[in-house]
Formats: sequence, structure tokens, C-alpha cells
Amino acid sequence: MSGGAAGPRLPGLDADAWAVIRAGLAEDLGPSGDVTSQALIPEGAPGRAHLLAREPLVVCGLSVAAAVFRHLDPDAVFVPRAQDGDHCGGERHVLAEVSGDLRALLAGERLALNLLQRLSGIATFTARFVAEVQGTHVRLVDTRKTTPGLRTLEKYAVRVGGAHNHRMGLFDGVLIKDNHLAVCGSVGQAVGRARARCHSLLRIQVEVESLRQLEEAAAAGADAVLLDNMGIPEIRACVAWAREKAPDLLLEASGGVRLDNVRAIAEAGVHQVSAGALVHQARWVDVSMDIQATGAAAT
Amino acid sequence: MSGGAAGPRLPGLDADAWAVIRAGLAEDLGPSGDVTSQALIPEGAPGRAHLLAREPLVVCGLSVAAAVFRHLDPDAVFVPRAQDGDHCGGERHVLAEVSGDLRALLAGERLALNLLQRLSGIATFTARFVAEVQGTHVRLVDTRKTTPGLRTLEKYAVRVGGAHNHRMGLFDGVLIKDNHLAVCGSVGQAVGRARARCHSLLRIQVEVESLRQLEEAAAAGADAVLLDNMGIPEIRACVAWAREKAPDLLLEASGGVRLDNVRAIAEAGVHQVSAGALVHQARWVDVSMDIQATGAAAT
Amino acid sequence: MSGGAAGPRLPGLDADAWAVIRAGLAEDLGPSGDVTSQALIPEGAPGRAHLLAREPLVVCGLSVAAAVFRHLDPDAVFVPRAQDGDHCGGERHVLAEVSGDLRALLAGERLALNLLQRLSGIATFTARFVAEVQGTHVRLVDTRKTTPGLRTLEKYAVRVGGAHNHRMGLFDGVLIKDNHLAVCGSVGQAVGRARARCHSLLRIQVEVESLRQLEEAAAAGADAVLLDNMGIPEIRACVAWAREKAPDLLLEASGGVRLDNVRAIAEAGVHQVSAGALVHQARWVDVSMDIQATGAAAT
Amino acid sequence: MSGGAAGPRLPGLDADAWAVIRAGLAEDLGPSGDVTSQALIPEGAPGRAHLLAREPLVVCGLSVAAAVFRHLDPDAVFVPRAQDGDHCGGERHVLAEVSGDLRALLAGERLALNLLQRLSGIATFTARFVAEVQGTHVRLVDTRKTTPGLRTLEKYAVRVGGAHNHRMGLFDGVLIKDNHLAVCGSVGQAVGRARARCHSLLRIQVEVESLRQLEEAAAAGADAVLLDNMGIPEIRACVAWAREKAPDLLLEASGGVRLDNVRAIAEAGVHQVSAGALVHQARWVDVSMDIQATGAAAT
Amino acid sequence: MSGGAAGPRLPGLDADAWAVIRAGLAEDLGPSGDVTSQALIPEGAPGRAHLLAREPLVVCGLSVAAAVFRHLDPDAVFVPRAQDGDHCGGERHVLAEVSGDLRALLAGERLALNLLQRLSGIATFTARFVAEVQGTHVRLVDTRKTTPGLRTLEKYAVRVGGAHNHRMGLFDGVLIKDNHLAVCGSVGQAVGRARARCHSLLRIQVEVESLRQLEEAAAAGADAVLLDNMGIPEIRACVAWAREKAPDLLLEASGGVRLDNVRAIAEAGVHQVSAGALVHQARWVDVSMDIQATGAAAT
Amino acid sequence: MSGGAAGPRLPGLDADAWAVIRAGLAEDLGPSGDVTSQALIPEGAPGRAHLLAREPLVVCGLSVAAAVFRHLDPDAVFVPRAQDGDHCGGERHVLAEVSGDLRALLAGERLALNLLQRLSGIATFTARFVAEVQGTHVRLVDTRKTTPGLRTLEKYAVRVGGAHNHRMGLFDGVLIKDNHLAVCGSVGQAVGRARARCHSLLRIQVEVESLRQLEEAAAAGADAVLLDNMGIPEIRACVAWAREKAPDLLLEASGGVRLDNVRAIAEAGVHQVSAGALVHQARWVDVSMDIQATGAAAT
Repeated sequence: MSGGAAGPRLPGLDADAWAVIRAGLAEDLGPSGDVTSQALIPEGAPGRAHLLAREPLVVCGLSVAAAVFRHLDPDAVFVPRAQDGDHCGGERHVLAEVSGDLRALLAGERLALNLLQRLSGIATFTARFVAEVQGTHVRLVDTRKTTPGLRTLEKYAVRVGGAHNHRMGLFDGVLIKDNHLAVCGSVGQAVGRARARCHSLLRIQVEVESLRQLEEAAAAGADAVLLDNMGIPEIRACVAWAREKAPDLLLEASGGVRLDNVRAIAEAGVHQVSAGALVHQARWVDVSMDIQATGAAAT
Repeated sequence: MSGGAAGPRLPGLDADAWAVIRAGLAEDLGPSGDVTSQALIPEGAPGRAHLLAREPLVVCGLSVAAAVFRHLDPDAVFVPRAQDGDHCGGERHVLAEVSGDLRALLAGERLALNLLQRLSGIATFTARFVAEVQGTHVRLVDTRKTTPGLRTLEKYAVRVGGAHNHRMGLFDGVLIKDNHLAVCGSVGQAVGRARARCHSLLRIQVEVESLRQLEEAAAAGADAVLLDNMGIPEIRACVAWAREKAPDLLLEASGGVRLDNVRAIAEAGVHQVSAGALVHQARWVDVSMDIQATGAAAT
Repeated sequence: MSGGAAGPRLPGLDADAWAVIRAGLAEDLGPSGDVTSQALIPEGAPGRAHLLAREPLVVCGLSVAAAVFRHLDPDAVFVPRAQDGDHCGGERHVLAEVSGDLRALLAGERLALNLLQRLSGIATFTARFVAEVQGTHVRLVDTRKTTPGLRTLEKYAVRVGGAHNHRMGLFDGVLIKDNHLAVCGSVGQAVGRARARCHSLLRIQVEVESLRQLEEAAAAGADAVLLDNMGIPEIRACVAWAREKAPDLLLEASGGVRLDNVRAIAEAGVHQVSAGALVHQARWVDVSMDIQATGAAAT
Repeated sequence: MSGGAAGPRLPGLDADAWAVIRAGLAEDLGPSGDVTSQALIPEGAPGRAHLLAREPLVVCGLSVAAAVFRHLDPDAVFVPRAQDGDHCGGERHVLAEVSGDLRALLAGERLALNLLQRLSGIATFTARFVAEVQGTHVRLVDTRKTTPGLRTLEKYAVRVGGAHNHRMGLFDGVLIKDNHLAVCGSVGQAVGRARARCHSLLRIQVEVESLRQLEEAAAAGADAVLLDNMGIPEIRACVAWAREKAPDLLLEASGGVRLDNVRAIAEAGVHQVSAGALVHQARWVDVSMDIQATGAAAT
Repeated sequence: MSGGAAGPRLPGLDADAWAVIRAGLAEDLGPSGDVTSQALIPEGAPGRAHLLAREPLVVCGLSVAAAVFRHLDPDAVFVPRAQDGDHCGGERHVLAEVSGDLRALLAGERLALNLLQRLSGIATFTARFVAEVQGTHVRLVDTRKTTPGLRTLEKYAVRVGGAHNHRMGLFDGVLIKDNHLAVCGSVGQAVGRARARCHSLLRIQVEVESLRQLEEAAAAGADAVLLDNMGIPEIRACVAWAREKAPDLLLEASGGVRLDNVRAIAEAGVHQVSAGALVHQARWVDVSMDIQATGAAAT
Repeated sequence: MSGGAAGPRLPGLDADAWAVIRAGLAEDLGPSGDVTSQALIPEGAPGRAHLLAREPLVVCGLSVAAAVFRHLDPDAVFVPRAQDGDHCGGERHVLAEVSGDLRALLAGERLALNLLQRLSGIATFTARFVAEVQGTHVRLVDTRKTTPGLRTLEKYAVRVGGAHNHRMGLFDGVLIKDNHLAVCGSVGQAVGRARARCHSLLRIQVEVESLRQLEEAAAAGADAVLLDNMGIPEIRACVAWAREKAPDLLLEASGGVRLDNVRAIAEAGVHQVSAGALVHQARWVDVSMDIQATGAAAT
């Protein structure tokens, strides 16, 4: 997490984290700030805090938590005691230590925890999916089912948990669905039109619900297909057909992917499995923060 | 959800929903938009869609979903078939119908669903807590453990689920914690200082971890206490003491509140129970959207 | 005044000062800046300036003035020769010295003075009110009658002058007025509804215009009342009644409070007196700035 | 005041009023709005209000007040009963009537009044200066001593009061002061450099403190001079010299201009007098607002 | 150009045009607006104007020009007399007629023309390139060499002129250059890493400067190559090799493409030719605007 | 180019460059950044680059290019090898060297070049006009025909090329055209009204198309005239008349000014010639950037 006082420069994780931090602080501090601390904590009093895992988890978001405190106190010192991706073992495992302005620590505590708990929750849940498909060659990816405003962060948590990302949004990938076909008339026409109008560095993926549609998509020159909500036998049939007839076609399975069926889908032979559950079925894990005043202010 | 083209005027739910919608569209559409629809759907082609519950749920966020589509197409017509707070019975229950520009429907589909699924998930989970404490006189409230950027919306979902809200943030309520006491020296000094420096329309609440601390807080003139992470017997002891010695003191219990212990805490006699779990342990419920082209564009 | 180049982090005085500084510079410098200095002052030429009180005053806003210059020249050195709250004795009393980029000094001169003159004017005028009520136990507070955009700064000037602040805005305090009662039906219904819908850390205040209304408000469970535009005898009657019947009720008097009647109101026995005049009847005091070029540029 | 929902398009008074309104509402409503009205006033309840002058005044800011309510409720109807510039005769003179959403009326009341009271205060005070110089040919103008963020509005109030505006800021006029001369070496060099570097549609004005400096400025080709803080005899001497030697030179007097000396300065024969006092010595005049609920909501 | 008062909703051309219009008006109108018109044109006076081609051109930007006027006067009526892409025949060919607020017409005239002249200049110049390659099957595309802030508009002008767009930016396409290879070690490693880390809907393109590098790229599994600054014979050799050995590989030529060599490059057999010159060597074409006052204001 | 991380403070060139840089990076990097470099370049890898002139040019924009890289990497070191205004001699003349984060160099390359090529193109073209009028006493100035959003930068390039600027926009100069006269009735009335309503530091210029109109303008008290689209003989007649009858009147010629006629116009004796062609007929010059990885990352 780079950035310093003025925030990060290159777009991506840091920039989006910065926007989330600003929004989170705005809704927690409002126009008048932390009225309790303003009344009770002397201006400039120093403090120190520890971030603690309260249950086993895959930690994610330490640099984001650091940025919360640096945003509130540019001189805050944040010392991570773990790295994003570490599997941490539960009760009171120290994740990081932060020292700085005590008012800033108190003002940032809740936001830092809200982010750490949400992101570590996703990384922890994703890691369980990744363990399920270990040994298969499938690429496990996320979807666009993410919390509005937090997509970059949540997709980062998916990577920290060991899976991969699908396209970022509607702007950097072409996926043709039923709705599009209803207007275009045929898979062939739709793929042709997308090829003609989209720039040459974008692949064309088509959602298919049957082997017949898969054949059409392949014939139309699609680069990839999405096997949507198919049963395992149907997926196997598609894989078998494609291996023979369209070996360059990327096969992705999606729809209702859960911890208890992801391995079976992977073993059916597709190249890629996408699962919204990595994000939207993940719960927060328990992380807390202990704060102490330091220096003369502490009595 | 009022607002129209220029967005809502009065702060609160609508204004914050608007900000979330803008952020959500920005991350999904990027600078160049939905490249698939731009290639395949004729500009101005009309369409119609249905929002469908795929499992039993307490619906929440219909006006927010409507605002997504109205933001993308000011002429879109959104007809709700349910109201926020309705218990909807599962498979393909129609929640709403929306018609308008087909490109706008496709561009807004994912964001509208992401919001509906998250908010309905919270309302549905909260309703289970509310059912648990039915018949007690306790006031069940949320906490500041909310998704950064979505606090107003998630606190609304808590209300829709039947519970109440605690303070919005650090700016509109005074809650004195251990960390503050460490600097101030004593509960008495802390409460006195808060009373002197905060304006006269804010109450002073003090977090206590024992009956002894409760007595101190009451003696210091606190308006309310937060019984933090106490066991049921300890809560009962505090309630008994306060009924006799400090009948005007507001008693709130918090910490580790779950579906399986919320009733016992409520029955211990506190006035208010706060539970972060209403929000952070809620999973998304399943809602989907069916879209069709209408008019001449549909083939 | 913290903040540095990127502006302050914690909300409150600093953040709002920063916003006012940006607005003030925008309207004075426009898109093309100080065309006179750009034509005549070499880029990078150094300078030094003194801020001088031209009449007796209570100084207020030195850190805001410092921020103006630091905003324009991050390397500017601002050395205060007085502190906010000091009573300064008139003709050419040096309030501060600032050295830095000469173009920045010239560009910031007017804005720094406009802020210092306005804020010191309020602090000076408030100090006269405070002197009037010296020895009584009344808490003298401001109102929401402040210059749009400058509320945080003007409320700060009131504190510097020795008085206190009332609520910051409509968002952090409940005050029920006639208009509300007209809709709610009765004081009892209004207080009950506010108590049920507002969170538990906000007090409920009711505006009353007679002893009868005061009795109603007390009976309804209001935490505080506002005795609006009452004469001294009526205030005394309310105080007498409340001391006996509602000793916990906060009594505030307001309406037409001036230098010549504030002591009488205070002596009538209310806990708090609110006066919009602290802000809206204050005139600017006279402060000026002497600038010299330094170094080789000075001829 | 045009603009409608999306705010005004052309820069100037309307656009700046809009910015002030946004800032004023933000500081009064915060992130959660008017908590009292939200608790007590049913959503959508209608109301009506009257704006009343409580003392004799020159009204100014009616369109700005209208914009406050239209910003909060685009369907609000604001009917002015006076025009900016009218001399209104005191106790309960109705300035305007507004009907619309009751919550919006309550939320906008304070901001609308704060603006009306400030702007009418300036217009009223300016009108007294204008009356003083009646019959002379002097052009009475304001200065850059205005409240940060409100310059456009306050300069408008000066015009409403019957005086004129000086330059808007440092960006649209060239005024050479002592500080500039210290760097440039001589009046001649300074005027020459300004003429060479500033574009051809800007005039060059030079601040002078003596007849000798006036002669230098005229010789250097200045278009205008500012006679700063001169006594009446000295002003008369400058006027006499210029009438003969530099008849095209614009003569402006400034510094310590008050109600009790403005006529003498004007009669000394300068073309223009600038007075910061028009703005910074003006106090708010008394305007209030009566609100009633209308329709079924009113009990 | 949709959008109305609040601006466009879907990202893309309209949204970016809106941002350019706002920036253009800000720099032309500044904080105080068109001082000439404010002094001379009565508020609300109506007017009518014609946009006229003063030389033969391919018109582009009519909807953007319309948006300029609608931004300044929401009630302005803009009637196009041509469509983007039309070849217009020179002296005083009427492109559009617009009627509305006279001050708005005068304020928007320059910006509307600046945009029309620039965009029509690009479309006109692009059309000459398109004519050059007529009959070949090459796809002529633009590059990222566009005016900062105007990329979406300038890429639109390229399409209006008859050519196609390359990727929008660095975010929606993978192009591996020498600089990347220097770090990655080999074309094979670079392509492999890009394939592993980029999502599955992005193609991988590699810049090559020789037939040997082309062979490496093809072997590494690149989807496309960029033949950079090659001579015609070298391009032919690459085409010949690829037709036989890598028929699915997309071949694009770039570097120094001009009107006088584009056909030869196209005829060398590549699939795509990219030319920055379409944009950065285009000059403005001549368009002017005649304005008349209408109604009573016209004398 | 000052500014540092938080951007420049004083308005003008730096501030506007900063806005253009932000817009340019946003459109090139989008929400997800340079996907190629993110996949291939290790985070934090260092690099070095050279900016090279590929044809003879007058360099302009080096500080803007530096700001691009400093915006992306605050620790980047930019060493100019030339100064804005230098005539650089063509093939691979090194203009500057920059070292810093390799990803930042790659992300900023295109934007830095786009700005350098455009601004140097204008400076180079302007220098040719300046050479044409060498020895005459005419002041060569630009117009408001500039690329929307880049006016400050393009006007800077005009100065770097050796010419001067006209007014910045509609806000800092009064120019009365036919359109205004049509409403005002006569040149005399228009000039009088402008004089009365505009502040005293603005000059009044009137556009004239004949000697008769020139006489009217002079009689009305205009400070300057614009001789619009006149032939050389007509210009000469105007100059002759004005020398005798209105020696203080500023004479400016404009309309269709080209390299092949600018000297003749200058020699006709006007004080000032304005030419939009300096900007809108300038093409980009060729500048490129060579980047190498440095340190351990380079293989």
C-alpha cells in the first residue's frame, strides 16, 4: 500500500482502497468527527494498538488497514506481524502493531477492522474452495457478484485466498448471453458483430446452456464459452466434444458452485470454474484491536 | 427513492444509495461501458425485465434497485410487485418488473442484483433475530460493524428486518471506552469532561465490564452504559442493581450476540441489545433477473 | 492547524478551514491567478510579512491564516507572535510573522486577513458577552445562525471568545418546535415518537413558550427545554417550577439575547443561554499585513 | 435564479449561490439529515411558510432563498412578495411565501434565513452609503474584503444596495502596490512590465500615497491610480493636478471610508471611492420564517 | 447525445463529451462569466444561430455542439441540418441551427466551434486514409496518440471518418513491448506470464521487429503481433510466413503510416494497420457561427 | 512545474497541467491500470528512460512531462537536457532523462509524449510565425481557438514559441461584436453600457469591419478595436486614420492570418495581430521515449 499523504497514483488496488477509506471515514466521522475522543483525549496524545485474530483465518487487508491509520495520521507507524495470505492460528494471534496519534487510532479502529474482517473472511472462505480443487488443473475464478464499491478489494481477497479473477467489469471483456442473442438473431451473427465492433485485443465468450449451443458457438468462432448451470454429465459431454472438435476453445463452468460440488465440476474437465460464492457467501472473521495510551498522557 | 435525474436532495438513505450506485456503476462500466451490449444491442432498443426471488427472503432494496435503472435510463419504468419488508416465498416470486432501454437494463442488472441480494440478506437474517426476541421488551439494535460505504443502506436493511439502529457514527453519540478511561484517569473525570465539552443534546454512554464499573458510571452521572461481553448472570446482577439504584440509566448489552443466545440476553432484563452479527454474519440471498428484448428489436 | 500539503485528515475545524481556504482562493485567484504579481514578481522571489492588529481585539484564526500561506507555499514559515484567545492591545500589535514565496504571500494576503478579521471579530464580540455573565453559572452558547460554509470556523471563534457551542446542525441533536407539534398533535406524542425513532444517545429538547408548555414537556419526558423569547419574569417562573418539579430537566433561554440583557437572563437561573448575536452581530476587526521582498529580488 | 434540479449553467451569481447552498446544507444536515423532522414529520407531508422582515431593511437574496427550497424540494413553489432592492418597512412585512414538502421547508429554513439576513444586511448598509453620496458623481464600489466563499453573493448585495463592484479578484485586474514596486525598482519599470506581460484588455492601476507618486504613475502610463488613505486636502491636491496634467487618468480613493466621511471624500472630486465597510461592517438584519403544516398532516 | 440537465448516464462518448464541455466552459467563462454579454445583452433575451461549414469537410461532433448549448440553456433547440459522417460541400453549408437564450449562444459559441472544428478535422483527414485503402481488406485503426482528455471524442471522430478503433487504453488490452521483454527474459516467458495473470477474456499481442521475433511470438502462443516500423518487403515476408505457419495469428502493422504509404502497407497483406496520424496530423477545418438576436431585443 | 504529491497550489499553468494529467491518466489507465505491466513487471522494479526529439523542433512541455512521471512516482527523478523554448536539432536529440519506478515510466510514457508532441508542435509552428514578423513592431497574439481543456497549456506553448497571449477567456476582457451591437442599437450605446457595468480595470474593445465603424468606435470611447478580416489596403487606411485622429486607440488585426500573409498584415501598421492558426493549424512533432529496466530486474 503506497500512496502517502496524497493517496496512491497508479490505479488499481491502492486507489480503490483509498476511495473506500475516504467513504468509510466520511460515514463514521461525519462533519464533526469522533466527539468522544475530541472531548476526552488531549490533542496530540500518542498511543499504540495491536490487531488480533480471534479465530483461525487467512489474513487479508493489512496494507489497507495500514492505509486507514496513515490517512488519519501520516506519521503513524504500522508494523505488520503477518502477511496477506498467511494462515493465522486463532486466539489473539497478533496481525500487526500500530503506533501514532491516539485520536487517529480511535477514529480508524472500526474502519480498519471492518475492512480486515470482510477481506480476511473472503480470503479464508476462498482458501477452502482452493483446497477442494487441489490437484485438478482447473482455474478457479470469481465473478462480478461483489459488494458495490469494493470490487477491487474483494477481487484482491480472492487472489489472496489462492484463486484467480475473471474480468473486472463490463468494460474489459465480451460475454454474449441469451439476452443478446434474442436481439441478434443467431450465435453466428452475434459473434460476428462483436468481432467487427470490439477492438482486436478482446476475446469473445458466449454463454451456452446445451451441447447444441456449444457447437453453434464454436462454429461461430467464439474464443470461449460459459457452460451455465449444467449438470456434471452435461459438462462432461461438452468437454468431450470440445477436446475433439474445438481444442482451442476455452471452457468455463459456472452457476451454483459450492464447496460441496466444486471438485466434481473441476474434475469434469473444464479449464475454468467461476464461483460468486467466494465473495457473497463469505462471512466476516473475528479480528479485534487493543489500544493503549502511551507516554505522559497515560495515567 | 426519490431523486430523479439529479439525484436526491435530502441526506440520508437516498443520497447514500445514490453514491453507492455511482461507485458501483463506475467499477462495472469503467470508462468505456458495457462493450458487449454496445456491440450487439442497437442504441435505443427497448426491453423488459423481472426481478425474481430464488429462495424465501425478506425483501429489501427495491427502491435502490429502481434507482439503479432510473440512473441509467431516466425514462425506465420500475413497477414493484412487493414492498421492502415483505416475506417472499421463494422460487421465482416476482419482486419487481422494469422496462426501459435494453442497454440500460443489461448495464444495471448486476449492480441492482448485488444490492438487492446483500440488503435482502441482511433483512432476512435480522428478521430471524427479531423473531427470537419476540415478546421481550428489549430493543434490538445494530452496531458500527458495517461494510465501508454502505452503512446507511445496511442500517436501513436492519430496520426493514424489524430491528432498530444505534448511533450512525462517531459524530452523533458519545461512548466512553477503556481506552478513553486510561487517558482520563477515572470514570468520573471522563464523564465530567464529556459533559462539559460535548453539546447539551448528546447523552453520555460508558462501556463497563463489571458491576463495580457500572456503579462507578452511574455515580459519575452517565446517561447509559454498555455491558460488554458479560455472561448472563453478570448481566442479571447489573440489571438488578440498576433497577434499584439507577432506574433512569439505560442498560445495553453487547458482545458475541448470536441467534442462539440473543433471547437469553434479552430476558436478562436489559433495555437494549446491540448485535453486529445482524450485518456481518448475513449472507446474500438469491435473486435473479430475466431480461427480454421488446418491440421490433426482438427477433 | 495540521494538514500539510494534502490537507487535514480528521474532520472538524481543520478540514472545514481547508475547504473555506480552497473556496476563498478560487474566488480570488480564478483560473489565471494574480495577474499583477505574475507580471511583476520574479518566480521564486522570497518575501516576509507581518500580520498586525490595528485595534484592540481577541485574536482568532492564526492557524487558519497559517494554513492559507502553507496551502500556497508548503515551505512557508509562519511564526505566531500571539495565540488564539489572546487579548491584543491595538495599534500595530504583531500577531504573526510569515516568510516564504513572495507571490504566495501576495496571493494569500487578502484571504488570510478576511478570515482573521471575521473570526477575531466574533471572538472579540463573544468575549464581551462572556464578561457580562461572569460570576453566574450560566453556560453561554451559540446557535445555527452562522455564515453558510463557515459554521465550524465561526463556532470555533465562539469558543475562543470564551463561550460554548450548541449542536453542530440538524443531524446531531433533537429539538422539537411548534411546527413539529402541529403535525404530531401533542407534546407527549412528539416526544414519544422522537424517543422511539431516534437512537438512544440523543437527548430530546422541546421549545416552549409558556409555563404550561414547560409542564407538558416535562411530563412527556423531554430531556431539555428551550424557553423561547420569554420575558425575565416568565423565565423566573419556569426556573422556579422546574427546580421543584423537574430538577433533571435542562433549561435553556433564547431569543433576542443582547449585550444589554444577557446578564439579566443569566441571573434568572436557567442553565444555558443561546445567542445568535455572538456571530451575526459581530463586525470585522481591523488587521493588516505588511509585506516586504527579501533577498536579491529586493532593490 | 434559474437552474432547476441540476443547478445553474452560466457562471456567476447563480452558480456561486448554488455552491454556497450545497456547503450550507452539508454543514447543517450532515450525513444523516434533520433527525428531528425525520422522526416527527411524515414523509411527503406538505407545508407552507412565510418569510417575514422583522425590521426595516433593503431586501436581498430572495432568489437565493428560493433556490435553497428548490434544491431540497424541486417541486416547491416560491412566491416572492417583494423584489431584491425593495425597501421593506419592518415588522412582519411578508417578503415571500413558499409551499412544498414540509421536511424540506424545515431543513432549509435556517440556511435560507442565514443567507437572506446576511445579504439584506449588506444591501441595507450599502444603501445608507449610497444615500450619503447622492448628488455627487462619484462611483461607490466595494473591495475584495468579503466573506470567503460568498464573494459573488456579497458583491451582488452591494449592487442591490445601489453601489457598484470593483474587480472580482486578483485574476481580472492589475493593481500595482508598494510591495510590487519594492521588487521592480520604479513605478515606470513596474507599469512597463505589466503592460508588456498582461494582455491588452486589462488596464493598469497603481496605488499611490502622495502627489509625487501620482505624478510618477501618470508619467509611467498608468491607466488608473488608487489614492490610498489620503486626507481630504491631499485628495483635493491630487484631483487638481490630474485635471490639468492627466485628464484621462482614473482617480480612486480608498482607505478608512465610513458613513461619516464618505461624502467629504466624494466631494473632493475623485471618480471612484472604494469601501470595504459596505460588506465587513454590515450586520445581519432580522428576518424570520413561519411554517405551518398543510393538508391532512396538520392536526 | 442524450443526457439532459444532469448529464449522460451510460459511460462512453456522451459522458466524456460532458466532461470536456464542463472543462471547456470553465476555462472560457471562469468564475465571473462572459462579462461582455452580461453588460450588453438583457437577461433572457432570445437568439438564433447557424453553424456553417467554410470549407469541404466530413462533419463530426454535431451532438457534442448541441450538448454545449443545452448545457448552457436546457431549453435551447438544436436542429441539425447534417449528420455526423456527411461530406459537406464547403462555403456556408448550414450544418445546424440553434435557438435559445442569447447569452447562452454567445457563451457557448467558441467551445462548440472548437469541438466541431477539431473533430471534423479528424474525421475529414481519416476519410482520406480510408479512401486510400479502399478495396483492400485491411482494418484501419487508430492508436493511443490522442489529445489528453479528448480520447473518447477523437476515437469517435476516427469512426465517423470510416476507420476503426484500437484498444481504449492500457486497461483493456495486453501489448507486450521490448521494455517488457527486457525484464521478463524471453518472449515465451512474457506471453506465459501474461496469460497466467491476465483474465481469460483478454488477448495477448506482442510487438516484433523482425521475422525471427515473429516466429518466437507465434511459438509462445501470442494471439496477435504488432509489426513495428518494418519496410514493405519485411512486412511481406512476415505475412507469407504467418499464412503458412500461424494462420490464426492477427498481424498488425504500425509506425510511420502516412497518406502516401498506407496503401502499400495494406497491400502487403496484414490484417490491420494502426496510424496515429489519423489524429495527430489532422488540422482543424473551418466552421463558423452566425448569431442574431430575435424577438423584441433585436433592434 | 512545482507541486509535489498534492499538486500545485497557485492557479495557472501548473494547476491546469495537473488537471490535464489526471484526465489523461484516467482515460489511459481506467479503473484497472496497465494490465500488461502489472502482469510482466515486478512491483517496484526500477527503470530509466530518455525522451528523444525525432525531428527539428522548439521544445515545449518538459515540466509537464516531468509532472506526469512525478504524479505516478513521487520519487521519480526527471533531468531535463533542454529547456522549453530551445530549438532542438532533430534525430535523437535527448530532451530529458527520467528514472524511477518502471511501471510508472511505462504507464506515463504515452501521456508524457502526447503532451510534449502537441505543445512542442505549437511552439515550433508559432516560432515560424514569429520569425516572419521579425523586425516589425507588431505584437503577435493567440486567440480563444484552443483545444477544450488545454487552453492554459496551449497558450503557454504560444509564449514559448515567442508570441504573446490575448485574454484568457470571456471573463477577463470585454470584446463587443456585431451580435452585441444588434441588441444594443449603436456602438456608442454599447460602449457606454459596457463602461458603466464592467469594473474599472477592464478595457473595452470593439470589433469593426470598416473604417466607418472604426470611426464610430473611436467616437464612442472604445479603448481598442479589432479590425476583422480586412484586406491590407483597408487595414492601412484604418491605421492612417487612427494615427491622426485616435492615437491612443489600440489597433488589432485578425481573421485568416497565415504564415504567408502575416508579415504583410504586420507591416500595415497595426499594434497587434491575433492568429488562431498558431494553435489550430499546428501538427504534432515527433518525440519518442526509450525505456530500459535497470538494476537486478533487467536480465
